[in-house]
Order: sequence, then structure tokens, then C-alpha cells
Amino acid sequence: MINVGIIGVGTVGSSVALILEQNSEIIAARAGMKIIAKRGVVKDLTKTNKDVTIPISTNIDDILDDPEIDVVVELMGGIELPFEVVKKALQKGKAVVTANKAMLAYYRYELQNIAGDIPLGFEASVAGGIPIIKALKDGLSANHIESMWGIMNGTCNYILTKMMNEGVDYLTVLEEAKELGYAEADPTFDVGGFDAAHKLLIMASIAYGIDAKPEDILIEGIERITLDDIEFAKDFDYNIKLLAIANKKDEGVELRVHPAFIKKDEMIAKIDGVMNGISVLGDKVGETLYYGAGAGGDATASAVISDIIDIARNGKSSPMLGFKKPLEGALELLSQDDIYTKYYIRIKVVDRAGVLAKIAGVFGDFKISIESLMQKPPLSDDFAMLLLSTDYAKESDMRRALKEIASLDVVTNEPYMIRIEE
Amino acid sequence: MINVGIIGVGTVGSSVALILEQNSEIIAARAGMKIIAKRGVVKDLTKTNKDVTIPISTNIDDILDDPEIDVVVELMGGIELPFEVVKKALQKGKAVVTANKAMLAYYRYELQNIAGDIPLGFEASVAGGIPIIKALKDGLSANHIESMWGIMNGTCNYILTKMMNEGVDYLTVLEEAKELGYAEADPTFDVGGFDAAHKLLIMASIAYGIDAKPEDILIEGIERITLDDIEFAKDFDYNIKLLAIANKKDEGVELRVHPAFIKKDEMIAKIDGVMNGISVLGDKVGETLYYGAGAGGDATASAVISDIIDIARNGKSSPMLGFKKPLEGALELLSQDDIYTKYYIRIKVVDRAGVLAKIAGVFGDFKISIESLMQKPPLSDDFAMLLLSTDYAKESDMRRALKEIASLDVVTNEPYMIRIEE
Repeated sequence: MINVGIIGVGTVGSSVALILEQNSEIIAARAGMKIIAKRGVVKDLTKTNKDVTIPISTNIDDILDDPEIDVVVELMGGIELPFEVVKKALQKGKAVVTANKAMLAYYRYELQNIAGDIPLGFEASVAGGIPIIKALKDGLSANHIESMWGIMNGTCNYILTKMMNEGVDYLTVLEEAKELGYAEADPTFDVGGFDAAHKLLIMASIAYGIDAKPEDILIEGIERITLDDIEFAKDFDYNIKLLAIANKKDEGVELRVHPAFIKKDEMIAKIDGVMNGISVLGDKVGETLYYGAGAGGDATASAVISDIIDIARNGKSSPMLGFKKPLEGALELLSQDDIYTKYYIRIKVVDRAGVLAKIAGVFGDFKISIESLMQKPPLSDDFAMLLLSTDYAKESDMRRALKEIASLDVVTNEPYMIRIEE
Repeated sequence: MINVGIIGVGTVGSSVALILEQNSEIIAARAGMKIIAKRGVVKDLTKTNKDVTIPISTNIDDILDDPEIDVVVELMGGIELPFEVVKKALQKGKAVVTANKAMLAYYRYELQNIAGDIPLGFEASVAGGIPIIKALKDGLSANHIESMWGIMNGTCNYILTKMMNEGVDYLTVLEEAKELGYAEADPTFDVGGFDAAHKLLIMASIAYGIDAKPEDILIEGIERITLDDIEFAKDFDYNIKLLAIANKKDEGVELRVHPAFIKKDEMIAKIDGVMNGISVLGDKVGETLYYGAGAGGDATASAVISDIIDIARNGKSSPMLGFKKPLEGALELLSQDDIYTKYYIRIKVVDRAGVLAKIAGVFGDFKISIESLMQKPPLSDDFAMLLLSTDYAKESDMRRALKEIASLDVVTNEPYMIRIEE
């Protein structure tokens, strides 16, 4: 028998307690033993889910100091406090299962070191119910991972799908998403790409052993995407998705989160609404893709409990971050300047003869070729919108070109750029 | 260090030997120890891949009797002989990894009993490189599996995709598939649905503990599908796929393999060409989907080696068929007669007034409602093709209705039926 203590009995924590009860028989059969939610701890007793019948208190030590509790499930939210709590639990020899991606984005290596052979499960921290962590750690373990492309934020994918399929503008869909509970009152963490970045960092640790923090990687959100961008994408058979991308090259690995144009017949482009999906390219297996609900109480709890069952079966840790032994010549994080891709650019210009020549001239100076161009009819008497796509270019060249274009007297706003991933 | 012996060094076996060498560094880092292909055994030494440098002989005992070999990889093909070989290897205390779905379709429970605590890995037996076995055993272990829908035969999916997208008829695509190496000279095992059925039975053991053999379940192939069926599907926004379906109901589980109409906006309907994909519905996690290459030397070898790495890490077996302890009230295989779904029917009729009334009359007698109807222009002066879809009906009623329709004097061929899964 395994006793579980749940720290943070909110949406996911309540689901963990309830599923351990509702599916107890099949879980016991699969684990080889009973798994019991023994107690929970919350900050505010008045907000607990009435269906949850386990004893609940407000003192974390009720769980940490209980010698009968074998596994601590950490679902508190935040970064520093849960880090301290998980550290204490591990130091007391208790296995830990966490869904806390923000904590892991900063402290996963520290925690791995503290854990040693004590199990530390985090399947639920990436893409909710999709078993992508197990796929990377176990299923694809014979492969060098060449690249990973993930749609790992349901809020962004919901908004972009609506913009794409129904032609509704960003702010309108965002309001609707808030009403439906798909977006937070302050949506920055989701629409700004930070949530996806945390998940990408965890995946990159398993695939490459890279020790980077959110500050180290390129993160751009979807806030500036307009229906002009959507229209251009449609005209050229692209879909726009917020992608978390890991891209292995000879010298290291690119990690980046940003909106991207992807060809609409790619499997990953077909993932719509709040669903998540991750495409992984292994050097031997080729492309595999994993799709499912990336959030929600029950889906996330499914992942939490799968880790507890793993612990029950094996009684010891599988390598937390993918490698049991350090990899000789571990890979480096590449500079953002070295990104090499195609670009889509939107530029608001004064509607006057010779404007295009000036802009094309700047791109020419940086040896960036324009592939296609669309000029929207003048927005008013004075302004027009120029939409264009380029051939492959180096990110640093593109940034310098756009800076120069922004400074032209015929350009009225900072140009907006979306990378094209083919 | 783990020493591996490979019995059957054909396409997949060669890939296993080569990848263990090419990716040895990352495999050692992930496994925590070196994994070495020590020797191989083949039937015919003249056919061995020249790139494979391990010692190869023709005597299976060279592997079975070698005390230094820890893991036997069985890639022989066939059923009875590999069963005897795997049995012997397990009895000698050697772990076994196999990709042999036909053997497992018949002998998985016998082998599990013989194995006991000795690891027996079979990730590669289902859907090649896609880690679906690990997803079912580990990733979704907290869930009751409500249903599974798999596109698990690349030959069939290639043929159906070509018929659907390019309007080429079955026999023409089949010939093309043979030339491309996507179909065998005798394609019956693939196009008849048997290969997919073997895989479904393995998955059903993990999800439900069901002990059924291929003979026990409904298996229909794609051989009789015509461009008329394709046209009807397109007109009503369906795609036609060969599906392996497990469907849990209150009283048990349906297992069946047959072509099916599925709505073209379902994720599983978007899987084209030789690719495989499996959609799994868990009671807690909802739908998750797994996509990738279902065949090929390297992709299958990727799965074989992932099992060997698992063995290196854990040194003991995770429950082979999903359950460590027998599940109380294990599920029963349901009778084919109880399938309850919608149907598409194609009937070749004499082109004469009153024919439709007769056919509609038979369906009426069995209380089967017709939902939509398409009459193709007469094929010749004498015959016409009637295509129709029905509302939900019981399989046994549908079969009796079709038998009666077949016996009508205005019907010239046996009616053809495809189930509609919504």
C-alpha cells in the first residue's frame, strides 16, 4: 500500500483525490498495490471541494512529518515556496510528484540532485494528460532527438484557431476565452508564451540535458497577431500556431517559443481549439506526435497518478531528466542570433510612390530575398499595409533589417515579424 | 553492461544492431550502462546486411546457450517456432524483447506466465516506433480505457489515402503499393485486416486483460472498397479508414477490425499515407492520440531498443499485460451481434421501377431507418448502384436485413456494408 499526501487541493488536487477513490480497483491492479490519498493541505479551508472526503488541514507539516506518507503530491503553484516544500519532502526520503512547471523551469536540476535515487515524477508538468515525458524518457530513448515542435498552451491555441477559422480579432476572442474559462483574468502568462516556455525547458532537459532558464531563451507571445496576418497565412496555405520549438544543430540546440507559420497539411497544424500536441523528430524513429488535453483537473490528475503508479511498481526512480549518466559532450543552448528560418513581415507604411523600393532596398542590403508580397488597399487616405514573406535569413540580419526599416520616414509603426517554419 | 543476442537479423534486426552501435553513447547515458549487440542468428547467412559487423551464425543455441547474453531480441517471424524459442530463452532466465505480433496474438498469456518476473518487452509489436504500449501500460494507467481507435496498418492506409485523395481504384493502388514496397507480393495479411487485428489483441490485453485470439473477433479487410464508396464518403464529409476498434460497454468490450466511415475533422481521420495513429479515450484523461511510423527497420528498432533500455534501468519487469494483479471482474469480449452503429450500404440493383420500395421495405421490417440515399446513374442499360446510409442499428439486424435484400430478385450482387463510426 502507498499513502499519498496532497499539498494544494484545488482543481487538480481534488481530481487526484477523487480519481484515486473512483478508479481505485483498476489503479491497484495496475500498480500491484493500493494507492490511498491519506490527507491534503490547503491554504484556505473554506475553498475546498465538498466531494473530497480525505482529511484536509492548512499545515504542510501534517504531510511532511507524517511517516506513513510515502508520496507527496505538490500542486501548490508558485515557485519558491513549493521548491522549499519539495526539497524538504525529498530530504525526508519521500517520493514527490509535481505538476509545477514554473518551479521545474527554474529548479529541476537542483531538485534532481537532491532527489538522487528518490523518485521525482513530473509527467503532469508538461501538456497535462499527454504522456510526453514518458515518451521522451522511455519510448524514444534509443534516439537522438532532432527536433520538437509543441502546441503546449491551450489558451493560445483556442484564440488562434478562432481567429483562423472564424476571422474574429484577437481581443474579441480573448474576451470570449476569459468568459469560457480558457483564459485567466490576467492572461499574460499564457498568451505571452511563458507557460509554453516552461514546458519546453523541461522537455529540453530530457532530450538534451540542457540547463537553461526562461530568461535564456526567446519567448514571444501572440498578442500582436492581427487578422491581416491570418489572411496572409491563409492565402499561402499556412496555419499560425504558438509553437515551442527545440531544434538540434551540429553546434547545439535552439530553444524558442513564438507564433509560427506552419504548412496547414502538417499534422501539428491540424491541432485545433484548446487541445495540445507535440511533434518529436527522432533520428531513428522519424516523426512521432502526441495529442490530447493539455489542461483540466482530471487530465492533469491522470498524469499525476500515472507517476504514482510508476513509483509503486518500480520503487525507485527512473532518470528524472532522461540521462542516468552525464552525456559526454552535452549540448549547448544556441544564441537567438543564429536562428535561420523564413520570415513573414507586416509593415504599416505611408501610401506613397517609392515606399516599396525603399523597403526592398533595405532587405537587399542584408541579402534577404522577398518571396511573396501582398499590399492591402489603403487603410485610410494616408496609410497602407505591406505584408511579405522572405526566403531563409539569419535572425540577427532580420532584426537589423527591421530596425532599419522601422527608422524609415515612410514606415509609421514598428514592423511585426512571424517566423515561418517549414 | 548488457549483452544482446538478436535472433533474426533481417531489416529490423540489422537496424537494432546498427543503432546500438551508432547511438551507443546516448543509449548508454539513458540506460545507465552500455548495451552491446553481441551476436546474431539468421536462417540464411547469404542474406545478411553487410553493414552489420556482429558475429552471425545459423544456430539459435549460440544465443540461447551463451551465459553472457542477458537479453534475447526475437525478430524471426512466424508463430510456433518463435514461441518455442522465446519460451526457452525465458526458462533460461534471459529477458526477451520481441516485435512478433502474430506470436503474441496467440501466446501472450502463456508467455507472460512463463516469464513471471523476467522482463518481456513487446513495444515494437504494435505500431512500430510509436510508444503506444508504454502509453497504455504507464502513461494512461490511472484510467479506465473507454475506447481505442487505431490506424495500425500502413499498407491499408496508403491504399485508402490514395483512393480518397486521387480517386484511383483499389487494384491500381495495390499494384503501385507493391512496387513501392508498401505491400507484400501476397498482401492478404495486411489488406485483409489480420495484421491490425493482432495488434488490437495485444492492446486489448493491456487495457482490459482480455484473452482473445484472432479467430474470436470480427476482422474485415479493405479489398471490396470501390470508388463509389469513396465518393459517397466524400459527399457526406467522411473519410474511410481501416480501423482497429476496442469499445468498452457496461457488459464487456467489443473488438473489431474493419473499414469505417469517420468524420473527416476527427484527428484520426487526418492520418494519411503509410503513417499509423491510435486514438485512446480514457475516462479521466479524455482523448489522447499517438502518431508515427508504424513500420520500417529503424522505427521498429527504436521501439525494440527502448525496451532494452527499460530492462537495463529497471532490471525487472513492468507488468507485461498492464495488470500486476488480476483485475476483479475482468471484462468479457462481446459478441459481434451486439455491435450497434450506423451503416453505409452499397447495393447493385436492376434498374427498374419499384426497386427502392422493395429494399426500403426490408430495412423497415427490421426497424432500420435510412438516413441518406444516392442513386448512381445506370451502369449499363440494366443495372444501377444504390448507395445509402442508415441510422443506428444492431449488427445482427443489419446482417439479417442484408441477407434478405441479397435474396431479392432485383438485387444482383451481395450488398456491401461499411460501418459508420461517429
